Amino acid sequence: MERIKPHTLSGFMELLPAPQMQMERIMAVLRKNYASFGFTALDTPAIESSDVLLAKGGGDTEKQIYRFQKGDSDLSLRFDLTVPLAKYVALHYAELAFPFRRYQIGKVYRGERAQRGRFREFYQADIDIIGDGKLDILNEAEIPSIIYRTFRDLGLTRFQIRVNNRKLLTGFYAMQGLEEKSGDIMRTVDKLDKIGAEKVKKLLMDKEIALTEAQADEILRFIAITGSNTEVLTALQEYKGRNEIFDAGLEELNTVTKYLAAFGVPEENFAVDLTIARGLDYYTGTVYETTLLDHPEIGSVCSGGRYDNLAEYYTDKQLPGVGISIGLTRLFYVLGEQGLLNADLNTAPCDVLVLPMTENTGAVIATATAFREAGLRVQLYSEQKKFKQKMNYADKLSVPFVLILGDNEIADGTVGCKNMVTGEQITVSPADAIAHIKDALAEREKGAIILEK
Amino acid sequence: MERIKPHTLSGFMELLPAPQMQMERIMAVLRKNYASFGFTALDTPAIESSDVLLAKGGGDTEKQIYRFQKGDSDLSLRFDLTVPLAKYVALHYAELAFPFRRYQIGKVYRGERAQRGRFREFYQADIDIIGDGKLDILNEAEIPSIIYRTFRDLGLTRFQIRVNNRKLLTGFYAMQGLEEKSGDIMRTVDKLDKIGAEKVKKLLMDKEIALTEAQADEILRFIAITGSNTEVLTALQEYKGRNEIFDAGLEELNTVTKYLAAFGVPEENFAVDLTIARGLDYYTGTVYETTLLDHPEIGSVCSGGRYDNLAEYYTDKQLPGVGISIGLTRLFYVLGEQGLLNADLNTAPCDVLVLPMTENTGAVIATATAFREAGLRVQLYSEQKKFKQKMNYADKLSVPFVLILGDNEIADGTVGCKNMVTGEQITVSPADAIAHIKDALAEREKGAIILEK
Repeated sequence: MERIKPHTLSGFMELLPAPQMQMERIMAVLRKNYASFGFTALDTPAIESSDVLLAKGGGDTEKQIYRFQKGDSDLSLRFDLTVPLAKYVALHYAELAFPFRRYQIGKVYRGERAQRGRFREFYQADIDIIGDGKLDILNEAEIPSIIYRTFRDLGLTRFQIRVNNRKLLTGFYAMQGLEEKSGDIMRTVDKLDKIGAEKVKKLLMDKEIALTEAQADEILRFIAITGSNTEVLTALQEYKGRNEIFDAGLEELNTVTKYLAAFGVPEENFAVDLTIARGLDYYTGTVYETTLLDHPEIGSVCSGGRYDNLAEYYTDKQLPGVGISIGLTRLFYVLGEQGLLNADLNTAPCDVLVLPMTENTGAVIATATAFREAGLRVQLYSEQKKFKQKMNYADKLSVPFVLILGDNEIADGTVGCKNMVTGEQITVSPADAIAHIKDALAEREKGAIILEK
Repeated sequence: MERIKPHTLSGFMELLPAPQMQMERIMAVLRKNYASFGFTALDTPAIESSDVLLAKGGGDTEKQIYRFQKGDSDLSLRFDLTVPLAKYVALHYAELAFPFRRYQIGKVYRGERAQRGRFREFYQADIDIIGDGKLDILNEAEIPSIIYRTFRDLGLTRFQIRVNNRKLLTGFYAMQGLEEKSGDIMRTVDKLDKIGAEKVKKLLMDKEIALTEAQADEILRFIAITGSNTEVLTALQEYKGRNEIFDAGLEELNTVTKYLAAFGVPEENFAVDLTIARGLDYYTGTVYETTLLDHPEIGSVCSGGRYDNLAEYYTDKQLPGVGISIGLTRLFYVLGEQGLLNADLNTAPCDVLVLPMTENTGAVIATATAFREAGLRVQLYSEQKKFKQKMNYADKLSVPFVLILGDNEIADGTVGCKNMVTGEQITVSPADAIAHIKDALAEREKGAIILEK
């Protein structure tokens, strides 16, 4: 038979069992945290009609979209979870209760140029709160507080949620008479982290934006306002009273900062940061980025903000919202590359591997069943192999515990229970073995999922 | 602005929040059960290179495949989870430990003709055990025992896992000198449930298969062997000694039946059934189908079997396996249509909705946080609305409990806790409210996920 060389497409993550288990663990933490704040799980199709998906126009990403014909239908794979959410909310508007809070963890597709660490199929993990006509600003503080708790649950402490407000920026530019150019300016300033102040200034004065040096300096002075949150907010007071939009933005930023503290987010984990604006045009108020303090090279691992009109391409209903998105596949990839995924957590497919050393299969099955019913993940090893080969199998899977069951143990009502990490082996009653195993596993599960070093 | 009418593609399931919650609950039961038997979670790309995905040739389904060009690449969406598994095992062979046990719950794509209850994007939930060269027959009994426990966990009792063996059938046809035709005959006999004995006989005697009436009768007599498992197995003994393949198949069927009992599957939930063969050519031994006894019209909800060579299109390694697949989206759809999804379980996005009746937002946030840290799913309602509108919102979401927090409660260190099902409202300490809510929720969660009626 002619054989095809098996391969996985480049830009498509396909994990081995142990890292997949680490990914599952991270996803479980996200799901649990999102659900604990009253977000409902959604699952929309990966394929949408192209007219729906591209209603807004794809902009820069249009070329990246997987778009194809099937029969008479012009179809596209979703490139984010926001456009499908907008469609969902517009389509099912009458059946939803607002504020509508949903989370979605799903694969999206972008045909980017293939390069290390860039994925064409990747998970996004999004939460959004959508209001009907209005949405209280408290939500804009709650969203980052959810990210704070999620990151803490993942084991992280050295991260910072950076918060800014688009109105503040728009108002500031209006003070300089630069309303028309504020979009271009913000997109340029957004590059500050990547290219530095000098180059930003140069871009601002280039013929496309064409600011005077004085204007560019004024902007750089503004975004250079740093310090503690109180210091930054105090410095901003000086600009007050000159532009209504600015004043509204400052009021919002003050409120979000106050509520973030009420939500229990410590000062060291969030920072008012005037340099962030987010590239996307549709944010209208609070914006967020999240960085790992010891790994600034990763960039923002979680971004989002407030928008005034989620679904304007589908409905005349005004649907303001606030949301945030974790680029999960890329985050996972980078954490793996940096060696920050805790390899000490159990990544074996089972907690206990039962090795029969007897012909009494009924007794072996009964023991495996009893351990499983006690809540353990149990694999019964059924192959006819030598003992050494069986133990090699347990080693290769990194199974935490092996149960050895021979005729003696069955006759005595005991099991041989070997801890594969310590090498210690005990012969005890099944109930004692279960308790012993559970204690050891619980101890091991205390470790952080993501390490910081 | 010109608006696009939002719509979801026909044949693509998109659920509202409450049914989505029911789907999530079913998936959680599958994941938990599959993991409890030592299966590792896999997640392969939805897109594969067409040469890899179609190595075997698509057969009947080739026209249904979503296949398209992106740049220079000829791509296809996966149409099942078995071909990606074959690729995965062949590709990562050296890094896997065998037997390799994996589960995968993922979306697959088939461009079927659109009709009610037929889906073009649907979930399959698969488990497979792959051996390297050999695989013990015990696995062929364990697989249906996992399905038994999973279905029981979903609340089902009235189901039957029907078991047969392809060797038994192949051997039987060889006895009649019909080896050459056994594939055609099995595919025809497989239709017995759908079209009845008369039509099967007619098809067997049609010019394509061209059996004599005596041969057709002999086959129908054989597959008409029914009764308890012991009765069927005893009746089969009469055919013994005439064909080696038949004898091997009977031996396997006896063994699987014996072990199924050892795995704790009651006789009423499995049946040796000579009529099932599975349409697919690649099963070589034990085959399974699963039916809901009160809903035979649904057909098999879970099917699979033993195969000798998973990945022959990719590798010369002999990789026998056994697996089973639940067509989850179709099953979910049919259960919904029949009204068999238990609507009494909690499908609200939260367990507790906190309604602030105070300006003291800090105290409200602190209460919500405390309830959340006690393990409850808590939504803080932040909108400025009238009390009646807030309660309407709780009603529309079917929230089980509402916490009412005014200045009096905050001063007293109490909360108003309203059970939205019974209407009962109590004013108690937060700790008492948490205990009260948890008890009520636990009681409610005792209900079956799937009803039988």
